[in-house]
Amino acid sequence: MLIVMRHGCSEKEMSDLLERLTKMGFAGHVSKGVERTVIGVVGRTYPDLKDVLETLPGVDDVVPITKPYKLSSREFQPQDTRVKVGDLTIGGEEVVVIAGPCAVETEEQLLKTAHAVKAAGANILRGGAFKPSTSPYSFRGLGEDGLKLLDEARKETGLPIITEVMTPHDVELVSRYTDIIQVGARNMQNFILLDEVGKARKPVMLKRGMSATIQEWLLSAEYILAQGNRQLMLCERGIRTFETHTRNTMDISAIPAIERLSHLPIIADPSHGTGKWYLVAPLALAAVAAGADGLMIEVHPSPDYALKDGPQSLTFENFERLVAQIGAVAVSVGRKMA
Amino acid sequence: MLIVMRHGCSEKEMSDLLERLTKMGFAGHVSKGVERTVIGVVGRTYPDLKDVLETLPGVDDVVPITKPYKLSSREFQPQDTRVKVGDLTIGGEEVVVIAGPCAVETEEQLLKTAHAVKAAGANILRGGAFKPSTSPYSFRGLGEDGLKLLDEARKETGLPIITEVMTPHDVELVSRYTDIIQVGARNMQNFILLDEVGKARKPVMLKRGMSATIQEWLLSAEYILAQGNRQLMLCERGIRTFETHTRNTMDISAIPAIERLSHLPIIADPSHGTGKWYLVAPLALAAVAAGADGLMIEVHPSPDYALKDGPQSLTFENFERLVAQIGAVAVSVGRKMA
Amino acid sequence: MLIVMRHGCSEKEMSDLLERLTKMGFAGHVSKGVERTVIGVVGRTYPDLKDVLETLPGVDDVVPITKPYKLSSREFQPQDTRVKVGDLTIGGEEVVVIAGPCAVETEEQLLKTAHAVKAAGANILRGGAFKPSTSPYSFRGLGEDGLKLLDEARKETGLPIITEVMTPHDVELVSRYTDIIQVGARNMQNFILLDEVGKARKPVMLKRGMSATIQEWLLSAEYILAQGNRQLMLCERGIRTFETHTRNTMDISAIPAIERLSHLPIIADPSHGTGKWYLVAPLALAAVAAGADGLMIEVHPSPDYALKDGPQSLTFENFERLVAQIGAVAVSVGRKMA
Amino acid sequence: MLIVMRHGCSEKEMSDLLERLTKMGFAGHVSKGVERTVIGVVGRTYPDLKDVLETLPGVDDVVPITKPYKLSSREFQPQDTRVKVGDLTIGGEEVVVIAGPCAVETEEQLLKTAHAVKAAGANILRGGAFKPSTSPYSFRGLGEDGLKLLDEARKETGLPIITEVMTPHDVELVSRYTDIIQVGARNMQNFILLDEVGKARKPVMLKRGMSATIQEWLLSAEYILAQGNRQLMLCERGIRTFETHTRNTMDISAIPAIERLSHLPIIADPSHGTGKWYLVAPLALAAVAAGADGLMIEVHPSPDYALKDGPQSLTFENFERLVAQIGAVAVSVGRKMA
Repeated sequence: MLIVMRHGCSEKEMSDLLERLTKMGFAGHVSKGVERTVIGVVGRTYPDLKDVLETLPGVDDVVPITKPYKLSSREFQPQDTRVKVGDLTIGGEEVVVIAGPCAVETEEQLLKTAHAVKAAGANILRGGAFKPSTSPYSFRGLGEDGLKLLDEARKETGLPIITEVMTPHDVELVSRYTDIIQVGARNMQNFILLDEVGKARKPVMLKRGMSATIQEWLLSAEYILAQGNRQLMLCERGIRTFETHTRNTMDISAIPAIERLSHLPIIADPSHGTGKWYLVAPLALAAVAAGADGLMIEVHPSPDYALKDGPQSLTFENFERLVAQIGAVAVSVGRKMA
Repeated sequence: MLIVMRHGCSEKEMSDLLERLTKMGFAGHVSKGVERTVIGVVGRTYPDLKDVLETLPGVDDVVPITKPYKLSSREFQPQDTRVKVGDLTIGGEEVVVIAGPCAVETEEQLLKTAHAVKAAGANILRGGAFKPSTSPYSFRGLGEDGLKLLDEARKETGLPIITEVMTPHDVELVSRYTDIIQVGARNMQNFILLDEVGKARKPVMLKRGMSATIQEWLLSAEYILAQGNRQLMLCERGIRTFETHTRNTMDISAIPAIERLSHLPIIADPSHGTGKWYLVAPLALAAVAAGADGLMIEVHPSPDYALKDGPQSLTFENFERLVAQIGAVAVSVGRKMA
Repeated sequence: MLIVMRHGCSEKEMSDLLERLTKMGFAGHVSKGVERTVIGVVGRTYPDLKDVLETLPGVDDVVPITKPYKLSSREFQPQDTRVKVGDLTIGGEEVVVIAGPCAVETEEQLLKTAHAVKAAGANILRGGAFKPSTSPYSFRGLGEDGLKLLDEARKETGLPIITEVMTPHDVELVSRYTDIIQVGARNMQNFILLDEVGKARKPVMLKRGMSATIQEWLLSAEYILAQGNRQLMLCERGIRTFETHTRNTMDISAIPAIERLSHLPIIADPSHGTGKWYLVAPLALAAVAAGADGLMIEVHPSPDYALKDGPQSLTFENFERLVAQIGAVAVSVGRKMA
Repeated sequence: MLIVMRHGCSEKEMSDLLERLTKMGFAGHVSKGVERTVIGVVGRTYPDLKDVLETLPGVDDVVPITKPYKLSSREFQPQDTRVKVGDLTIGGEEVVVIAGPCAVETEEQLLKTAHAVKAAGANILRGGAFKPSTSPYSFRGLGEDGLKLLDEARKETGLPIITEVMTPHDVELVSRYTDIIQVGARNMQNFILLDEVGKARKPVMLKRGMSATIQEWLLSAEYILAQGNRQLMLCERGIRTFETHTRNTMDISAIPAIERLSHLPIIADPSHGTGKWYLVAPLALAAVAAGADGLMIEVHPSPDYALKDGPQSLTFENFERLVAQIGAVAVSVGRKMA
C-alpha cells in the first residue's frame, strides 16, 4: 500500500504518520518526490486499511498495490482450475452448456425441458427450487419438492444438475440433491452463505453481483476458497448500468479479465444478462468468442406456444439452433463443445 | 399493466395474445391507436408478469401502471409511520441522531464513544457486532460478545442501540439485545432475512442496496411489512456510480422521493454514503435540509489521535460541532432535534 | 403517449387535463381501469412532451409508446442501410476492419502503420488529426497537417481513410480529405455538429456517447439523417459504469439491439471500449460473433518495442494474428471478411 | 506517476522500461518492496501517459499521484475565486439565486417570468436562446431573437442574465448579449468551445457532464482558465445512474468536494438534477446546506395553470416560497442570500 502525502504536508504530520504505522505493526518507507512525498507501507496490509489511513492528517490518497485476493488469483495458482462434475470438466478446452427453466414449476414442465435440452446437446440441467424474487408477492419456488423433481430429471436424462441456494441453513439440504451449488447475484456478498458453501463438498458456481466490481467478485470467491472448497467457477450475468433497453448490461470484457486475473473457470449467463430473449443467442456466441468456459441459458418450454413465439423466444427449437451455432463459434476460437 | 403491440402486428398475434391472457386469468382491453394498439391487462398483475408478456409474439413493450408495492406505499397508508424506540419517535417532527463506531472493538472504545456521543446530543448508539467485510481476511466483528458490550453501553448511557444482523439464524439472538435491528445494504435483497426480521418484534432499519432502485427498495420493505412488522424505517446510504472520488454517491433526492412514495421514515447515512470524513458534515446537513427524519453517523474515537486528526476526521469534537449545525438546519426547515 | 393518472385523482383534474391536451392540439382517449385511469394522447407527440405532461396535477406517470426516432428505425426502413466507401460495402454480408494509430503523429509512424495494417488485411485506415483530449496540456493533434499525412497514406496504400471532426467549422475541411467522417463519443450530442455532418456529402460514423442510452444514440443519428445524409453507420465504444478494471464497459448487447431497432450498420471499437490492450482481441471476436458489421482497432506501431511488448499489446504482429481470428469467427456466424 | 510492476517481472523488463522512460524524458526511481517493485516517474507527466505506460511489458498498474489539473486546484490558488457580475459577487459569503424559464419562448412569457422571479428575490435571470434537444424534432430555441428578448428583460428588471452557448461560432454573438456564458452539460467536453469561452471576456458557468467525474470536470475548467478567463464557476446538475425515478441523480457530495479540491464557486441546478418539480425545493435546500454558492432554478410561468398545478410544480408562488426557505437555510449554515 502506498500513501501519497498532501502537497505541502508538515514534518509533524509525516512523523506522526510513521509513528502510527509502527504502532500498527507496519514499516513505512519514505520517498520524497519533486511534487509529492510517497510512503510505502510494508507488512501484511488488508483492504480496509485504506479507509483508516485515508483519514489521517497530511494524507492525500492511499493506493493499494497488492491485490487483496490471493487464493483466487492467477499469481497464486498459474494453472487453470478444472471443476469436475461426473465425466464433465469445466475450465478445460471444452465449452459446457447449462440449460433449463428459470424455476422448477411442475414435473411435466421440468422433464419435458430436461429431455429437450439433453437432446439438443446441453451438458447440465438448471432449474430453481428456491427463487429470489424482488417482490414478496411473486412465486418463490417449490423448495425441497423442486429439488426432488430435479433429482428425478437427473435420473431420467443422466444430466447433472445445478440449482441455487439462498441461505446458509439450506446448504446441507441443497447439497444433498444438487451436483453444483449456485450462489446467485443477490447473494454474492452474503458472506455467511459464502462460508457455508465453502464448507460444502460440492462444486460451486458464484454469480457476479449486479454492482460488484471484478475485484469484489474475486474477494467473494476468496471466501469460498478460504474454507477449503476449490471446486469453484464464476458466472458473469450482467451488471447494472444506466441503459434501460436491456435488463442488465452483460459485461463481456469480464470474461477475458477473469481469465487473466484468476485461474477459476468463467461461465456466461446471457439470459439474465440481457433480459430479452432475442439478445440471448448473439450474447451467448459473443461470450464463447471472448473465451467463456461455458454458458447458462434459460429455455422456455411453453410447448403450446413454441410454434408461434417466433425467433425472439428461446423455445426448444431455437435452443437447438443456438447449440449448433455455439459449436461453430467454439471451433473458430480453438475450442469445442463438451 | 399495458401491453404495447408492435407496429404492424398481425390479427393472429392479437387474438393469440388475448387468448393467452384469458388462460392466465386476466382480461385484456384492446385500444387501437393511430400508430399502435395497446392492450390493458386487467386483474391482479405482478412484477414478473412483465417478463412473461414481453416474450410473446407481436409485443413491443409492457408497461406496469400499478406500483408493485402496496403496504409500503403512501397510497395504501397516507399518514406517516412513526417508529417508537423507548421515548423516541422516529418519523415525526423531530430529527434523530444515531452515532457510534463502525464496529464494536473493545469495551473501552465503545463506552468512551457512547458517553461522548450521548454528551454531544446523539439519541441512539450504533455499533456493529456482526460486520460484513468485502474480504475474508478482514475483521468480521465480535459477534455475541459485541452485543453484550452494546448492552453494557446502553445500561451506562441510557441510549437505545441499533446493530446489524447478517443472517436469518441470528435474528433471534440480535433481537434479544438490540432496540433496532439493522439490515445492511448488502442484504437488502436477502429475502429470507427480510422474512425473518419481518417476524421479529423489534423495529427494523432497512438500508438501501448499493445498486437498488427506489422501487426495489420499497419492495424489500414490503417483505418485512408483509410479515407483520410495521415498525420499519429506511436508510439511504449512497449508491454505486461511476464517480470514484467518493466511495458511493449519496442520493439525497431519494429522501424526498421516499417521503412522497411511502409513509416510512427515512434516515440518511452520510458516513457510508461518502466514505470521506470531510464530506460527512455537509452531507448530513444536506440530508436534514432535504427532509430526512434522522442521521446515522460514524464517530471515530481514536482518543490518542483526536487532537491531531484535524477537521477532516469525525472525532468527538467534530461530532459535537456537527450536532449543533444539525440543530440549526433542522430548525430552518421547521423541525427540531429529538 | 399514455398518461397514467394518480390513484384517486379528481374529476376536475381529469377534465382540466383533457382541456389542456385539446389546447395543445392533441386528443385524449380516457380508459378507466379498476385501479387507474389511463389517457391515450393522440397526435404528433414528441419526447419533451413527457416532461410537460408529468408536471400536471393528477398525473402519476407518462409513458411514451411510439419511438421518438423515425428515419433511423427499422420500422421506417426494414432493409439494411449499406454504406459505400469506394469498392467497400459496410452493412452487408462482409465484416470490415478499420485499423490504424489513435493519433497521426509523424509521417513515418503513419505510413509504417498504414502499410502494416493493409498487409494484415485491414480495409480502412484510421488516424486522428483533431484529437479530443481530457486535459488542455495533452497532445491535441496535428490538424490539417495530419489530414495531409492521411491523404498521403491513402495514396500509398489505397486504403480509404476515416478521421474525426470535432467542431462544425471543420466539417468542410475534414470532408475534403477524408472518406468517412467520424463523430466522436464526446460529440454525440453536439447537435450543431450533427447538423453539419448531416449536410456533408461523405459517409459518417457516429460513436455512442459514454453515457448515452441506445435511444439517445438513435436520436442523434436522426439529426444526421434528417439533414439528408443517409450514408451513416454507428459505433459502439463502451459505456461508463462503476467498473474500474476496464476504462469503459463495452456494451456488446448494443450490437444486436441496434440491429433489431435500426437499419444502420454497427461497428465495434474494442480499443476504446476496454482501454486494455489484452482485452482488445477477445472483445473484437465477441463483437463479430454478436453480429457487428465491422471493427475499429488501434494498432500501436512502436516498431522498436514490438518484439518485447508480448501478447498484451496490439503490435503489428498481434494485429495480424487477430485479423486471422476475426476471419474464422466471421465464417462461424455465416459472414466473411471484406 | 507510479508504475507498479507485475509480481515476478523480469530484470530485462525492468531495464527496458527504465530505458524507455529515459528516452521519453523522464527519470525512474526504483523502489523494491517485498511483494512488488514500484517505479516513481519523475518529470512533467500528463494524464495520457498512464495509457502509454500501462501497455508496457512487466507493468501491472500505473497510478497518477499528482492531480492533472493545476489552475483550477486549491493547491494552486488557496483563496476562493469570486466572480463579479455587476454588483453581485458569486463565491463569497452570499448565496445567489438564478431563475427563469428553461427556454425563451415569447416576450410575454419571458417578461412575466423575469418580473416574478425578481419580485421573489432572484438575483440573475436565466433563459435558453439556443437549446440542446435530444431529438431533432423538438424546439431548438429562438436564437438571436431569444437573446434580444433576454436583453429586453434585463433592461426592464435590472437582472443580469445567463444563457447557453452551444458552438464556438456563437461565442462572440452570445457574449455581446449575456452577462454570464453558460456551457451546458452536453458540451462539457466540447474542447474547442471551452477554448473559445476561455478567450471571451465574460464570466462563464461550466455545467458538469452527465457522466463526468469530478476530475474530468476540473480538467474542462482548466481549458477555460488556461485561455486566460478566470471568471469561472461550476454547476452541478446531476449525473447519470441506474436510478430511473429521477431524471438524473443530483450529486450533492460534489459540492463540498469541489470546495475542497478547487477555488471555483459552485452552483447547483436541482431542476435538471432531479427532473421532477416536487424534488426541486428539497434538493435546492440540500445544496445550500452542503455549501453551494448559488442555485439555478427553472420557473414555469403557465400563469393560467398556476393555480391548478398544485404543489409539485414550481410556479411563481412556489418559487417565492422556496426563496424564503433558501434564505432560512443559508442563515442556518452561516451565510445569507445575495
